[in-house]
Amino acid sequence: MANSLSLDILGIGNAILDVQARTEDQFLTAHGMTKGGMALVDGEAADRIYAAMGPGVESSGGSVANSCAVAAGLGAKVGFLGKVAEDVLGTTFRHDITAAGVHFPTAPLVGGAPTARCMILVSPDGQRTMNTFLGACVTFGENDLDHDAIASAKVVYLEGYLFDPPAAQAAFRRAARIARTAGRRVAISLSDPFCVGRHRAAFREFVKNEADILFANEAEVMALYEVATFDEAAVLAAQDTSFAALTRSEKGSVVIEGATRVAVAAVPTTVVDSTGAGDAYAAGFLAALTRGKPVAECGRWGSVAAAEVISHFGARPQADLKALIGI
Amino acid sequence: MANSLSLDILGIGNAILDVQARTEDQFLTAHGMTKGGMALVDGEAADRIYAAMGPGVESSGGSVANSCAVAAGLGAKVGFLGKVAEDVLGTTFRHDITAAGVHFPTAPLVGGAPTARCMILVSPDGQRTMNTFLGACVTFGENDLDHDAIASAKVVYLEGYLFDPPAAQAAFRRAARIARTAGRRVAISLSDPFCVGRHRAAFREFVKNEADILFANEAEVMALYEVATFDEAAVLAAQDTSFAALTRSEKGSVVIEGATRVAVAAVPTTVVDSTGAGDAYAAGFLAALTRGKPVAECGRWGSVAAAEVISHFGARPQADLKALIGI
Repeated sequence: MANSLSLDILGIGNAILDVQARTEDQFLTAHGMTKGGMALVDGEAADRIYAAMGPGVESSGGSVANSCAVAAGLGAKVGFLGKVAEDVLGTTFRHDITAAGVHFPTAPLVGGAPTARCMILVSPDGQRTMNTFLGACVTFGENDLDHDAIASAKVVYLEGYLFDPPAAQAAFRRAARIARTAGRRVAISLSDPFCVGRHRAAFREFVKNEADILFANEAEVMALYEVATFDEAAVLAAQDTSFAALTRSEKGSVVIEGATRVAVAAVPTTVVDSTGAGDAYAAGFLAALTRGKPVAECGRWGSVAAAEVISHFGARPQADLKALIGI
Repeated sequence: MANSLSLDILGIGNAILDVQARTEDQFLTAHGMTKGGMALVDGEAADRIYAAMGPGVESSGGSVANSCAVAAGLGAKVGFLGKVAEDVLGTTFRHDITAAGVHFPTAPLVGGAPTARCMILVSPDGQRTMNTFLGACVTFGENDLDHDAIASAKVVYLEGYLFDPPAAQAAFRRAARIARTAGRRVAISLSDPFCVGRHRAAFREFVKNEADILFANEAEVMALYEVATFDEAAVLAAQDTSFAALTRSEKGSVVIEGATRVAVAAVPTTVVDSTGAGDAYAAGFLAALTRGKPVAECGRWGSVAAAEVISHFGARPQADLKALIGI
């Protein structure tokens, strides 16, 4: 990736193929799953869950990878770093993110674990429960960082889930340092309240000292600060970071920039599948932000993108988002 | 598959993984594709089209395989015969059709061509244009026929597309003979007007002398008899076969049983993606027929199933079809 690319957004995250199926809530209970959460599973558990679940639909996923695909669709210049294997799922992931207009320079893993898969069970109320087998993702490390691409991007967007694999966490921290040294902004998504629980101290430290922009939903930001209300969490987030976009499902989002606090409405829609809602919000937000839009407009782009993605099965948009936003 | 299964429907068809992407009509023109049709492509052309098309969503497909999955969801006892390879896509196909409740005894192909893929391009108006790389499907042959399963099924449902690979055509004919010898009904889907064009004489002979039930859409039945209007085609179909279910998109369907002709209304819906409409119609129809329902009710089940499938991306149902039909 040449320096001349001058990216708007460079995302770093897990490169995952999603397998989505509808389910009844009893299935979640019977398999000891926490509704709405993301659990890491080994290959054996992944096979067991796959065998038990209903007919699936496969599509490229991964939280920050989803954001990158959506942001590219909104006209941003986007790159993504993440590890797939040299297998059919890896080829599919590469095709889809490239076809979405995202630069994807990371070399595939050869002769190791397979491409990561996330089994996503969608309940009748549209809530999704995820079980992820990380596969090749755990080998993503500092050697996979593309310094020029990172230094060239207006925003480097890091996936909280990367804190789970140790080598990826090291790469995550190194990428943030490269970006800051180059005078770029660092954004982080907290990814999942359980992920926050696994890495709370490290996340707090990172949000306070390394990140310029924080993306989190209500449950995640409350988990980060271990407080019982959204408002308490928002006050603490505002102290720690210069910029926070906090999403609240149908209640919209709250964007905090220094002393300014802007409430952004959600775009009403029928929730078919909530998978990817936060990813799409962050994508819309960052696409607008890197285009120099004011904060309220960034939030609106995020809300429109999130509403499109939750109105159908699957985490990536099916409609023309540019037309929906009016650009 | 034991005799004791006593199936309602045994389907025989191509076992295919679909890759669906949205497209503009210019893409079809630029690649010399006929909108609405199905073209067979070799591995090289498949790779070229895949590289050029947009981000995809993968799901199990195949015309008669789709019908089998839908009919099983409506409570019919269903089996399917078709050839996948021993690869990731083959494993996915097997998972999905089995998870849908369909018996799938066909052994996978080992060490040969990969599992078949169909690249489906969906235009803004919901029309789908298909490019199929048949892969392992071309090796489906008489050795893959499960005599007991065929002889046990109330209806053996054969996919017209099987006329393309010569070994599959031989198996198709042999399956029809086994079914008739066992006193079972033989149903055929004409699959596609271009497929009809490739095998017109053989299809006409088969419909007249071997099939008990004909499924075709307007374009297919007109291509079969080389006539300019649907009404002429319907008259000729009525002479050739004891039972014909002819679909006409938003105009509903016409079911002809001997001297009786029943017009069935379409269920109004917004067409997002027409992929699988005919497959779902046949599924609803056969599920009702094998449950002893009258002809008009068979048509209604077909219309409800088709409307559900075209209201979203992908050929297999997402909603609870039993509830939609009221059973």
